[in-house]
Amino acid sequence: MREALAAPGVAVEVFATDEVGNRHPELPAAATAAGVPWLRCSGAVVEHLSDTVTPQGVVAVCRMPQVALADAIRPGARLVTILAHVRDPGNAGTVIRVSDAAGADGVVLSHGSVDAYNAKCVRASAGSLFHLPVAAGPDPAAVVVAARAAGLLVLAADGAADTRLDDLDSGTLAVPTAWLFGNEAWGLPSQLRALADEVVAVPIYGRAESLNLSTAAAVCLYASARAQHVGG
Amino acid sequence: MREALAAPGVAVEVFATDEVGNRHPELPAAATAAGVPWLRCSGAVVEHLSDTVTPQGVVAVCRMPQVALADAIRPGARLVTILAHVRDPGNAGTVIRVSDAAGADGVVLSHGSVDAYNAKCVRASAGSLFHLPVAAGPDPAAVVVAARAAGLLVLAADGAADTRLDDLDSGTLAVPTAWLFGNEAWGLPSQLRALADEVVAVPIYGRAESLNLSTAAAVCLYASARAQHVGG
Repeated sequence: MREALAAPGVAVEVFATDEVGNRHPELPAAATAAGVPWLRCSGAVVEHLSDTVTPQGVVAVCRMPQVALADAIRPGARLVTILAHVRDPGNAGTVIRVSDAAGADGVVLSHGSVDAYNAKCVRASAGSLFHLPVAAGPDPAAVVVAARAAGLLVLAADGAADTRLDDLDSGTLAVPTAWLFGNEAWGLPSQLRALADEVVAVPIYGRAESLNLSTAAAVCLYASARAQHVGG
Repeated sequence: MREALAAPGVAVEVFATDEVGNRHPELPAAATAAGVPWLRCSGAVVEHLSDTVTPQGVVAVCRMPQVALADAIRPGARLVTILAHVRDPGNAGTVIRVSDAAGADGVVLSHGSVDAYNAKCVRASAGSLFHLPVAAGPDPAAVVVAARAAGLLVLAADGAADTRLDDLDSGTLAVPTAWLFGNEAWGLPSQLRALADEVVAVPIYGRAESLNLSTAAAVCLYASARAQHVGG
């Protein structure tokens, strides 16, 4: 809610219980400052407007920012996340959040992925959806082409790859990079892997068969972020 | 299911539809090899036995392995995960999975955390619950004391810490380590942070306020794993 109210032109109106307004007075203050109506209502109204089982007493009507592919993959971008055929909204939202945390310049949900404005995705992103450009892209192959045209090294994450993340030196990880992540269940199709500059596995040191999407993305994105910011 | 059948003495009996047995013939074969009855039944029976909305056609009755604290924090352990007051079973299961992937020797869910045998936790662990010792520990402070007694450096993860993960050199990260993670919403209480050798934040390079528990744990555990296995 805080992030939506802070993002210019996003929130249209807010419905909230008095309890929320009293407990978090900075929220109605932020709404007023942004010229967004703060409409007091009962918990039953919020419950009706919300699709969660345990609503938090406040709902905002927001515009969906129109983000073009060129906004998410800008010239000069250093870190970009591309999701290909990612279907679970909780996963997608968590990857948007971790991309933001790792300092990514943009996220692209390619054609066939979940809608970034799915309510579960919005909640899982914990406000990050309003922090960095998140574009609904075309076919994933076209997104990869756009990333390379922007000068990004494209690294595809695939648990079965021969190259391990730990095999990449910090010099390689420090260059402007787009990370490409595939579907939760079946990963990246071979045509997409073939388009990447390198296919990379997060090494499994124990007996787990794999990592889930958001933890694998966290390890990959932070490996790049560390190399880019710390240099080693 | 595969992991439960492969873990000695865990599975007691399996209820499965013929469809599952035909599609995954290795499962009834594994059950037979382990001396576990494979009981064919209808989808309606599986649905009744399962608590998921979309059951996968197969349910195993399993024993809960009795894991003592001393099994999860053994002398010679190099990497251990300690969860203090972690309440969400999906988070706990995902952290067990990423701990397994990072090569951890054990996981401790201290008193006040969710039960590792919560069905959602079992599913989120994706079999890792049967790969490494997962103990239900005493009070988190007592678990930290046990970890130090076992010769482990105790690193507490806290987004507000002054020391950043990237400030630790690979020599420090390579020593036998127990990572301590706190509650999803309110983190680690100050008494627990005070017991750690170092309180460490995953750096936020963008505008996200924080990471969620499982992605933060993935970044921390893999930083240790990489230093321990690669040395840099």
